[in-house]
Amino acid sequence: MSSPTPFGPDATVADIGEFGLIAEFVQRFDQGPAVYVGPGDDAAVLRTPRGHVVVSTDLLVENRHFRRDWASAHDIGRRAAAQNLSDINAMGGTATGLTVGLALPPDLPAQWVVDLADGIATEAALVGASVIGGDLTRGTEVVIAVTVLGACDQAPVLRSGARAGDVVAIAGRQGWAAAGLAVLGRGFRSPRAVVVAHQRPEPPYDAGPLAARAGATAMIDVSDGLVADAVHVARASAVSIDLHSAAFPLEDPLISVGAALGVDPMEFVLGGGEDHPLVATFPAGTTLPEGFRVIGAVSEPGDEGPAVTVDGMVYAGSPGWSHF
Amino acid sequence: MSSPTPFGPDATVADIGEFGLIAEFVQRFDQGPAVYVGPGDDAAVLRTPRGHVVVSTDLLVENRHFRRDWASAHDIGRRAAAQNLSDINAMGGTATGLTVGLALPPDLPAQWVVDLADGIATEAALVGASVIGGDLTRGTEVVIAVTVLGACDQAPVLRSGARAGDVVAIAGRQGWAAAGLAVLGRGFRSPRAVVVAHQRPEPPYDAGPLAARAGATAMIDVSDGLVADAVHVARASAVSIDLHSAAFPLEDPLISVGAALGVDPMEFVLGGGEDHPLVATFPAGTTLPEGFRVIGAVSEPGDEGPAVTVDGMVYAGSPGWSHF
Repeated sequence: MSSPTPFGPDATVADIGEFGLIAEFVQRFDQGPAVYVGPGDDAAVLRTPRGHVVVSTDLLVENRHFRRDWASAHDIGRRAAAQNLSDINAMGGTATGLTVGLALPPDLPAQWVVDLADGIATEAALVGASVIGGDLTRGTEVVIAVTVLGACDQAPVLRSGARAGDVVAIAGRQGWAAAGLAVLGRGFRSPRAVVVAHQRPEPPYDAGPLAARAGATAMIDVSDGLVADAVHVARASAVSIDLHSAAFPLEDPLISVGAALGVDPMEFVLGGGEDHPLVATFPAGTTLPEGFRVIGAVSEPGDEGPAVTVDGMVYAGSPGWSHF
Repeated sequence: MSSPTPFGPDATVADIGEFGLIAEFVQRFDQGPAVYVGPGDDAAVLRTPRGHVVVSTDLLVENRHFRRDWASAHDIGRRAAAQNLSDINAMGGTATGLTVGLALPPDLPAQWVVDLADGIATEAALVGASVIGGDLTRGTEVVIAVTVLGACDQAPVLRSGARAGDVVAIAGRQGWAAAGLAVLGRGFRSPRAVVVAHQRPEPPYDAGPLAARAGATAMIDVSDGLVADAVHVARASAVSIDLHSAAFPLEDPLISVGAALGVDPMEFVLGGGEDHPLVATFPAGTTLPEGFRVIGAVSEPGDEGPAVTVDGMVYAGSPGWSHF
């Protein structure tokens, strides 16, 4: 994926300049068949044969969503793309194109930016999406603004379709990224498995379209926290959701991180975000698509309205991430 | 356009929180007929009956692209939307949807953010586009990342289609925003006309589709500078372009700003960006659409390759904006 660069390791963003960086980017971004007009014009043009486009935007801010000393630029690029691609996955769709806006301090190494671009391109290639445009500008901290476009083969799966009697199912790993973040926050670099899970999530990109085809009634990707995102589904659908902790047998790295940090490892599972698994609801009796397993049940809301419980009880831990 | 807010004038972004701000935003953003799924899910879905989507992304960074003491939040919002909508205009298209990513310092007044949202909605409404999604996060400086989606009634007009013998034409005001910026940079607030032009550009949104229909061979919006953007067309089209300074009779405010600041006012016209007029090339003999006037001619490139001249001479001033 990576190409040699025509500048030395000490070159900064200011040395290379906007157009030099754009030239480096463009040769790294393969253009797939959905691209009608790629980078280099006032706007890009993407083919949308299905008559709609699914679109999502996410910002990553340095020292808030990533730290340059905690992950390589390549991994940060993969993660920036992954969390956006995951939003299309959560609609039951497949991504086709991305735009990338970057605010960059002028003294940032140019190689860092090129590695970031390589990481974005690598992750986008996993689903066949092309980086079709973007914007580069100066900022005091690195901001990565990714917008992803895609399409669904059938009706998009919203958060609002869960019904009493549905089962709740998950596809993908949950809690590992949070354990990795906790480890990094204490200055450690191991267990390696959870640190890597934080640095480079692996959303189950096949699971979204499979769930849509199997008749998922609602779907979300876990980015704020399992309980927090289940609350989003419960409120949008006007239902209550009970999650079953026994559906999450604790894996060794989570147990050892919990023991080392004096934390109940179940908190990583229930409160953690950023692994980007999918949580979907299906009518009872649905044969779940490959990769999904049942983790809870949907019921009518109680007197106090839509709520999320764990094993029938209110979850007392932090439900997830707060942005301010 | 503006709604009353449920918080006091001293409330900060941190006081209101992400979900409080999103609630304020969503009620301000009318959803038009192109919107299939609006704000509130993992992604938005826009109808694209023409089988394609035109997409462009721009970042505005505080103290780089705007200053909070130089313009109101409402005007900054209008400008953020305008410069993105202008990119769709420059393809000959019309915008249908926008996503808005915001990085916000926690101590920023919540009212400032709400006014910004009102400004974005006001500008988007000029072309019938809806704000369909976005992302809010914390940052140390305000960053506004807008992605705009749209469609063309006919083939998009690229930068690369200009041919020797074409005429070069412009629609919209040019040089006023640069004069306004120069005035603000010296601590002045008048002449009011150019200050307002900088604070709130008025791109000629009808001109792009009109030019496409009239057979424009290439088109660009002036955002970097008239000469700089003409260079983009010349290089993409492998042609040379001569601009005629006599086509730009200097208007009073430009003359008075030039006199006050000791600057040749023609520099505002040739080097200025951010008014977002459209520059298009048309085959000779084309009846120009309403709003366009001839400002130059396209020729075969000389021995040194594609170049832009003014009255046959190399332009000695700053060609435009540098991002680093």
